[in-house]
Amino acid sequence: MTSEATPRVVIVGAGFGGLNAAQALANAPVRITVIDQKNFHTFQPLLYQVATAGLSPGEIAAPIRSILRSHKNIEVLMAEVTGFDLDQRRVETAEGSIPYDYLIVAAGASHAYFGHDDWEPYAPGLKTIEDALEIRRRVLLAFELAERHAAGGETAMPLNFVVVGGGPTGVELAGTLAEISRHALAHEFRSIDPARTHILLIEGGPRVLATYAEDLSRSAQEQLNHLGVEVRTSTTVTCIEPGAVYAGDTRMPATVVLWAAGVAASPLGKKLGAAVDRAGRVLVQPDLTVPGHPEVFVIGDLAALKDEQGKMLPGVAPVAIQQGRFVAKVIREEVESHAKAGARAPFHYWDKGSLATIGRAAAVAEFGRIHISGFIAWLSWLFVHILFLIGFRNRLLVFIQWAWSYVTYERGARLITGSTYLPGWTGDQPSSAAASEHPPQEIHTGPAK
Amino acid sequence: MTSEATPRVVIVGAGFGGLNAAQALANAPVRITVIDQKNFHTFQPLLYQVATAGLSPGEIAAPIRSILRSHKNIEVLMAEVTGFDLDQRRVETAEGSIPYDYLIVAAGASHAYFGHDDWEPYAPGLKTIEDALEIRRRVLLAFELAERHAAGGETAMPLNFVVVGGGPTGVELAGTLAEISRHALAHEFRSIDPARTHILLIEGGPRVLATYAEDLSRSAQEQLNHLGVEVRTSTTVTCIEPGAVYAGDTRMPATVVLWAAGVAASPLGKKLGAAVDRAGRVLVQPDLTVPGHPEVFVIGDLAALKDEQGKMLPGVAPVAIQQGRFVAKVIREEVESHAKAGARAPFHYWDKGSLATIGRAAAVAEFGRIHISGFIAWLSWLFVHILFLIGFRNRLLVFIQWAWSYVTYERGARLITGSTYLPGWTGDQPSSAAASEHPPQEIHTGPAK
Repeated sequence: MTSEATPRVVIVGAGFGGLNAAQALANAPVRITVIDQKNFHTFQPLLYQVATAGLSPGEIAAPIRSILRSHKNIEVLMAEVTGFDLDQRRVETAEGSIPYDYLIVAAGASHAYFGHDDWEPYAPGLKTIEDALEIRRRVLLAFELAERHAAGGETAMPLNFVVVGGGPTGVELAGTLAEISRHALAHEFRSIDPARTHILLIEGGPRVLATYAEDLSRSAQEQLNHLGVEVRTSTTVTCIEPGAVYAGDTRMPATVVLWAAGVAASPLGKKLGAAVDRAGRVLVQPDLTVPGHPEVFVIGDLAALKDEQGKMLPGVAPVAIQQGRFVAKVIREEVESHAKAGARAPFHYWDKGSLATIGRAAAVAEFGRIHISGFIAWLSWLFVHILFLIGFRNRLLVFIQWAWSYVTYERGARLITGSTYLPGWTGDQPSSAAASEHPPQEIHTGPAK
Repeated sequence: MTSEATPRVVIVGAGFGGLNAAQALANAPVRITVIDQKNFHTFQPLLYQVATAGLSPGEIAAPIRSILRSHKNIEVLMAEVTGFDLDQRRVETAEGSIPYDYLIVAAGASHAYFGHDDWEPYAPGLKTIEDALEIRRRVLLAFELAERHAAGGETAMPLNFVVVGGGPTGVELAGTLAEISRHALAHEFRSIDPARTHILLIEGGPRVLATYAEDLSRSAQEQLNHLGVEVRTSTTVTCIEPGAVYAGDTRMPATVVLWAAGVAASPLGKKLGAAVDRAGRVLVQPDLTVPGHPEVFVIGDLAALKDEQGKMLPGVAPVAIQQGRFVAKVIREEVESHAKAGARAPFHYWDKGSLATIGRAAAVAEFGRIHISGFIAWLSWLFVHILFLIGFRNRLLVFIQWAWSYVTYERGARLITGSTYLPGWTGDQPSSAAASEHPPQEIHTGPAK
């Protein structure tokens, strides 16, 4: 099994693509090393629930080791990949290089600010557990600071949440923020009224959920409005500063800004030496390999590939999962038949349909010509996402949390951990300093009159 | 209700003491303001479970607002108290001062390093959710770094976990760390054997769990040994540096050091101007008031009071809870009878018994003359602690997590978030830099031979 003859497969990244490739290669006559910067796999479709205090990180993440524990031919390393040597067939890490016979790069994508990285401190994105916790911290902290401010006798500051980007993530965030402010927090404050929180969703294009059919985009926007979200389409953000977002000369006050506008592929893509597109995704061959390197595969959000209709495959989990399994199959067949990489069948994406959630009982679903909106779409979204969660334990916990929130309107994980500094709060100052701009004065306790 | 005539009660701190005082005063003819630095109440008895990846923060914490939501005469402020003006009867915060007619200070305690605060970066304590997450990060990271190191062809570094302090927290941590390394992680690594982790518990006194009867201390030590923990009593730590703990000339190698040795009361105690003991606890009157200020109460870990036998009341939840209710009763009676603070009955602590858990199916319980050890004690511990968790949702989630871990030996929340730097790992350097001390070399993949 571990003899030198056994081909070595190195998989970089344990997201949907890498994990599915590894599992599909378990028990194949290969030795597999899975490398990831984190020790856990994140179920990204539910990340927005962590950001909005509905779920805890531990409920949407699972240790990579646990997931792959039973496969003795798989080794997991928590390490950062620094580069590749395609000629020597080695993956480079800070601790040394790892040789491979087959390489699968599934390093995924992160959020991008279109050359405005200076916006990041004021507008966090949502790609990792840490991102989600930072967003949760800012959102919950804003309400606490507003209550404290109002209790200080000031006229309550208006709470303005701005979400930049009308894709699935932006729509999820805006819808859920509305839900929280109107329901979960409704009766818990004495000096402010959370229901008066203003939530603004800004989309550069003409409609939200642009990858969906037009009728579903319309429906999504209506459902957002119904939840209490103001949607501005065809609006391009030109500047973000503490406390405000600008579209040209239009200034939009923002207590908290969330970034859901752009993604950029992992920088590891460029390090493969192949051509990449504007988003940094590797332009792969139909068999998902790097041109000239049939032993090097790129899958998931890091790969750029068009389908039969010439339409770019979307950066969604089903694509990554199917690509992971496709690559595993290719490798397994070649290893078992001892055939050199010959003519390979091209990867074909089987589109089972798309689901996007908007908020409580609000979602859209597109299954070919069948378009569904509202409660039914939301139920299907929920069912699919709980079903695909890794680990029965997580499925059970998430189901309970969901049922609990649905019945009680409560959010299970409303913890403010870490610093109590909020960039957009009364200028760019620490929360405590902010309020002490006013000379200390009496704080009127008791319910607001 | 909110007329100026209504007496104002300000409660500082929403731990067991403050929360129970607030709840016992709900619907009394008073206006209550609860002030806490955090927006959530932490169920401290289960904090060690978060530190050892058994539970997620959201499962042992609940937003203070949610807990008190239904009581309209209670207002919650997330703010930092900076001091008191006992003459003007005001609580000072960075945002201004808050007037009170009655003040209840329940600011609790934190861990102390006996004048060695320089040890803190190398030996985190366990008092807050943030502390627990930092401990979890270090413990899990140590195993990952060891695996990576061993995969690099080095002889596997021995993993040494040192817990300083043999009180309930130290015993819980040591026992659970043993459980994790022997079971939860047992089959998940390829190059190291987690079961060979060495766990050392150091206690300065002659026995662990010193507040318990001697036979239970003996039993606890036996149960620790049985779980695989080495216990060294009558050993005083004289120095902690990255990678090692010293007792005099004895050097004990330590990959991770956890501090469970000392507690110090909140600095707010001193700011009340009353006499404090060595641990900074306020020496209160039998009615829990500050001498000369019958309207100022100090309860919980911040208060120093002897029982009828002249024995200092322990810093445990039941004491804080009973004190909170006692103070609420005193205030309610005086307010309702419009009587000035006259002769008050002294606080009497009703000791229902003590429980300390050690690990899986291991615990000790002391109910007066009845002493129990092992599985039955552990079951009672579990029952009591799940029962007293705030919120049905948390009880349900924690019960599921517990049952899950018990059956599968798995730990639900094994996430390494934040930095990947581990002090004490091959000197005081970032993990990646550490390994690259050796010139980059081949990493042998596949199971260790």
